[in-house]
Parts: sequence; structure tokens; C-alpha cells
Amino acid sequence: MTATMNRLWRLAARPVGLIRESDFTWCQEPLPAPVEGQVLIRNIYLSLDPGNRGWLREGKSYMPPVAVGEVMRGITIGRVEQSLHPDFKMGDLVQGILGWQEYALSDGTGLTLLTEDPSLPITAYFGVLGFIGLTAYFGLLFVGKPQAGETLVVSAGAGAVGSLVGQIGKIKGCRVVGIAGSDEKCRWLTEELGFEGAINYKKDSLPSSLEKNCPQGVDIYFDNVGGEILDALLAIINVNARIVVCGTLAQANATEPVPGPYNFRAILTQRAKLQGFIFTDFLEHTMEAMNDLKNWLDQGNLRYRVDVVSGLEQAPKAINKLFDGSNKGKLIIKISDL
Amino acid sequence: MTATMNRLWRLAARPVGLIRESDFTWCQEPLPAPVEGQVLIRNIYLSLDPGNRGWLREGKSYMPPVAVGEVMRGITIGRVEQSLHPDFKMGDLVQGILGWQEYALSDGTGLTLLTEDPSLPITAYFGVLGFIGLTAYFGLLFVGKPQAGETLVVSAGAGAVGSLVGQIGKIKGCRVVGIAGSDEKCRWLTEELGFEGAINYKKDSLPSSLEKNCPQGVDIYFDNVGGEILDALLAIINVNARIVVCGTLAQANATEPVPGPYNFRAILTQRAKLQGFIFTDFLEHTMEAMNDLKNWLDQGNLRYRVDVVSGLEQAPKAINKLFDGSNKGKLIIKISDL
Repeated sequence: MTATMNRLWRLAARPVGLIRESDFTWCQEPLPAPVEGQVLIRNIYLSLDPGNRGWLREGKSYMPPVAVGEVMRGITIGRVEQSLHPDFKMGDLVQGILGWQEYALSDGTGLTLLTEDPSLPITAYFGVLGFIGLTAYFGLLFVGKPQAGETLVVSAGAGAVGSLVGQIGKIKGCRVVGIAGSDEKCRWLTEELGFEGAINYKKDSLPSSLEKNCPQGVDIYFDNVGGEILDALLAIINVNARIVVCGTLAQANATEPVPGPYNFRAILTQRAKLQGFIFTDFLEHTMEAMNDLKNWLDQGNLRYRVDVVSGLEQAPKAINKLFDGSNKGKLIIKISDL
Repeated sequence: MTATMNRLWRLAARPVGLIRESDFTWCQEPLPAPVEGQVLIRNIYLSLDPGNRGWLREGKSYMPPVAVGEVMRGITIGRVEQSLHPDFKMGDLVQGILGWQEYALSDGTGLTLLTEDPSLPITAYFGVLGFIGLTAYFGLLFVGKPQAGETLVVSAGAGAVGSLVGQIGKIKGCRVVGIAGSDEKCRWLTEELGFEGAINYKKDSLPSSLEKNCPQGVDIYFDNVGGEILDALLAIINVNARIVVCGTLAQANATEPVPGPYNFRAILTQRAKLQGFIFTDFLEHTMEAMNDLKNWLDQGNLRYRVDVVSGLEQAPKAINKLFDGSNKGKLIIKISDL
């Protein structure tokens, strides 16, 4: 390793609305040196996820917000370059919340050792074999509790989580309908992933296309977006419907208070259950989840796409692809070579 | 029985906003005669409940709406006057959905035989020993799942359901805070029912009084109202909070679409569960519920108030007491003598 400098993005100001590059400062700082019990990691890939926007927002959440001046929080995969930690050695591939930076120090907290599987690209650890896969698996199976023959609708259906949710739903025997933002994404869902239906919410009328695609109503709605789409779903849920609240993309960049669903009363009249979750709520089931996901992947039942943008300096711009819907699959920044 | 005429309220037009007397027609009609398999019942008490307003609304719900021209739907307690049904005899006391009328025919469907207990007023069957008690019991215990030491907040806390919910919460070891619409009701909750706190939502600032009364946050919110109060609760729920959706009083008479909670995102960040229910969802547990409720009542752990208005002709006016908060306890119309 010959680098002596670290390049990184620090939060300059809380974004208002969509993230702008000027909300961050691109810094060059001396490379930190690990002390006893620490490792120095060179980041290779950075995961960009809708939830990152929430980390920039003040208020009670599952994690404190990123403070102004701090390195932007982000999940990365990296290579151990120096280790003064007994559990990690030079060359190990690890995943952790290591931030928008080229190099990171870690005391091992939250650091996961990854296995390099020659049959799989490393980016799979940001997808089906990582927190994305666990989010889809736990949310659908532990919160949504699908039964064969039920109708499952998933919004952001062509997204990293949504596309897995739909495919797991199909494995469990559900009729699956995805909601996505382009005809190309809709075709991918029905033609490649085998969803029974796909709705382009930017073009189709939601109420009528939901009705057409869900002749038996909706038993499970896996909600990545909230907003008007949730409202349209509430209007057609069946008795005992489960609504899995995984994300609120529709209000991610809101600058004004956003009303909840107008059809809220359907939760009462249809005796629906609406439940928020984060994959870490079910971590004790990680082994069984990973086993299932790996098996389904090996059997060809789970497909995914990755959308890799090169260069850490692109991160603040690239993250908005998640919100304008221009990403095709899991959005990843490539920071350095393997 | 000497009556030859029946007096009753038929729905004349769907109410817009608050119910007006002109939304109903006061009719005098010949007394119907039972045929084989039917009973004729003289109604004694009519239960008026917030849910009645929902029965007048078009749209998907747990029951079809009352049709214009139909006798207004209502739960009553009555006395069998004539029986051509093997399961019922003259003089039996029964409860059923027998409508806003002095006399009703029934083929026995949904008709429950009541036991006349000299130690209890018959109106208890509209309260702790009826669907009100079951609603409080099932909603709190089966949906809310309280643990000792948790904080329970209940809105419409001095109402028929809410006051029982709080008392059952206390039996289960919760810290209980009620929200009600007058100082008199709040005093009743804290001084008579032993709630740890009570908030007058018409006078107190909700955010600050919730914070003061719930120093450990809120684990269970039993929601009878929705609207702004739900929003204020979402702002302070703990991780894994349960929100029991029992009613939407705040929007009962709305004429415009009502937005859902602005703090909807808290469902995600706090991994909360929000679940609608109707007591009939748990009917298989009625025996155990009734046993517990009767025991708690006998032990003096459950108190209730009834607000009896005399005369069926008062029903359309009296029902609005539920929405302006002027009722004190379970609202009942007395139609005839025991």
C-alpha cells in the first residue's frame, strides 16, 4: 500500500429536498494509522440505498442522524490493508458501515468477514447475500407471512429489495404484482422474473391497473414507497391484509410534512396489520435466511441486477438515481479495484 | 302485549357530516307477526356507538352500509314477546342487531340469550359483559399484547371501550394514560379508575403533556380516534410499539378526505405494528374473555358509567353526543320498560 492520503465525503449541511453535491465536502486527509485492536480497510464498493437519505434527517429513528462535519455514513465492502486486530488479517474481505471514504479505520464492531466465492461477484454481498437479501427475506416471510395462493404486491418492485421480495413471493406460491417506474422495468419483472403482473405507476392509472392485476384483491403489500401508492393499495386490500412497511421512498426528499394515507380507515375496516421493520430486528434468523437465499440463488430462482457507478466522487450525484428511478438494480459505487 | 303498531327510524338519506334528524324518517308501521321459525322481540335498550356512523357510509367495510329506506341498524337488548322458534320462548331476554325500532322480527341469526343477573343492571350487557367489553379485551390483550411495566395510552379514554381498556391495562401491570375531552372525564380516569395520567386534549398541548405523562415513551397506543392524536402518539412511540386501531372517531363525520398520520414514517423507524381489529375476529375466545371480565367486575376492578337517554325518538339527536364528547359513559337509548 502506497497511499498516504484518504479522500472522503463529509456532511456539510443537512440536505433540503434532493441531495445536492454541495451538501457534502470532498476532503483529502492524511491516511489514518491503526492502533492496537484496529484494522485499516480500503473500501472497494459503497452501497447506496434509499435509507441513506433518512440518515441525514434529524429526529427519532433507528440510528442517530449523521452529524454535520462527520464522514457520510455508508455500507461498504473493503479489503483489510493493515490489521492490529486478532480477528482480521491483511487481505481479508470485509463488510461494514465504513462510510463514504476510500479508507476507514475499524475496531471490528459490526465488521463482517466475507467469503470470496469464485462463482459469485462480490457485489452479491450488497444484494441477495447481504442486508438487501435479509431485508427482503425477513420482511416478506416474518412480517408479511405469505401463504400460497395469496396476492402479493410490491412497490419499487424492480429495486434491489423489491425484486427479491417478488421472487421470494413466487417461491412461496404467491401471485406477484410489481409496481415500477418504467416499461423497461415492468418488462424485466414479468418477462425475466416471472411476476404475474407489473404496473408502471408513472403511466398507468393505479386504481384500475391494480384492480385488473389483482382480481382477488391484495393480501400482502410490501411497501417501499408510502404515499399515493400506499393509498391506492389500502383501497383494495383484503380482510387480514398485511402491509410490510420497509421504506418511504415517496417522501424521502420531502421538505414539507407529508400526510399519511387518506385511506387509513381501511386498516380498521379490513383488520389489516401494518408493520414497520428493519432487517436487524431478525438477526437471530440470519443463518436460515442465508441458507435459503444461497440455495434459491444456486437453483436459479433469484435474479438481480447491479448498477455500478465508478468513482467515490460520484456518490452525492449518483444517490439521486434512487429517487428519480433511473437506477436499474442495486446501486453501487465502485471506489477501488478488488 | 297490546301494541298493534311499531315505531321505527328508517334511513332517509346518507348523512353528510354530523347526523341530522332529517337523515332519518320516523315511521309508524303495523306490528309484524312472526311466522314459523321467527320470534317477535320488543326492544328495551338500544346501544349507540361510534361505529354506527361508519354503517351509514358507502364503501368497503366489515359490513355493507345501511341502505336508504332500511331500518337503521343498531344493537339492542329486548324481550321475546312471541316465539315460533324452538330456541327462544316468550319472556326471554335477548341481544341482537335488531335496529332502531320498538319491535323486531328475528329468525334467531345473531341473537344471543342473556342471563338476568340480579346483581347487575341489564345495561352491563352493552358494556363490560357485551361487545364493548370484548372489544376492549381482545383489542388490548390479543392485538396490543401488553407486558407489565409498559406504558399504555388510550384515546377516548373515558368512553365505553377506552375506560375498560385502561382498567384492563392496569390489571396487566401497565402504566396507563388516558386522553379525554373534559376535565371532569380526566378526573374520573385518575381519581376513580386509577389511571396514572389523563390528558384533556381540548385544553392541554398534546406533545408536551404526552411527554410529561409518558416519561418512558409509549409502548401501546389503543387508538379510538385517529387524526391528530394518532400523529402526536407516533411522535413518541418506542421501538416495537403496538398501535391498536379500534376506531377513527376524529374522522367519523368528515365530509372531505382525511389525511392519515403525518408521522407515518415512525411506523418504520420505530418498527411499530399498527393493526385494525373488530371484536368478532376473536369470537372463539369469547368464553375466556367473559370469564375474566366477569371476575374482574366481581372483584371491583372494572368500573363503568352509562349515559341513558329515554325515548327511541331521541336516537338521531343523541348519537351526536358521541362525537361532541358530551356523553359520560356508554350511550344507551331506553326504548321501553324491562
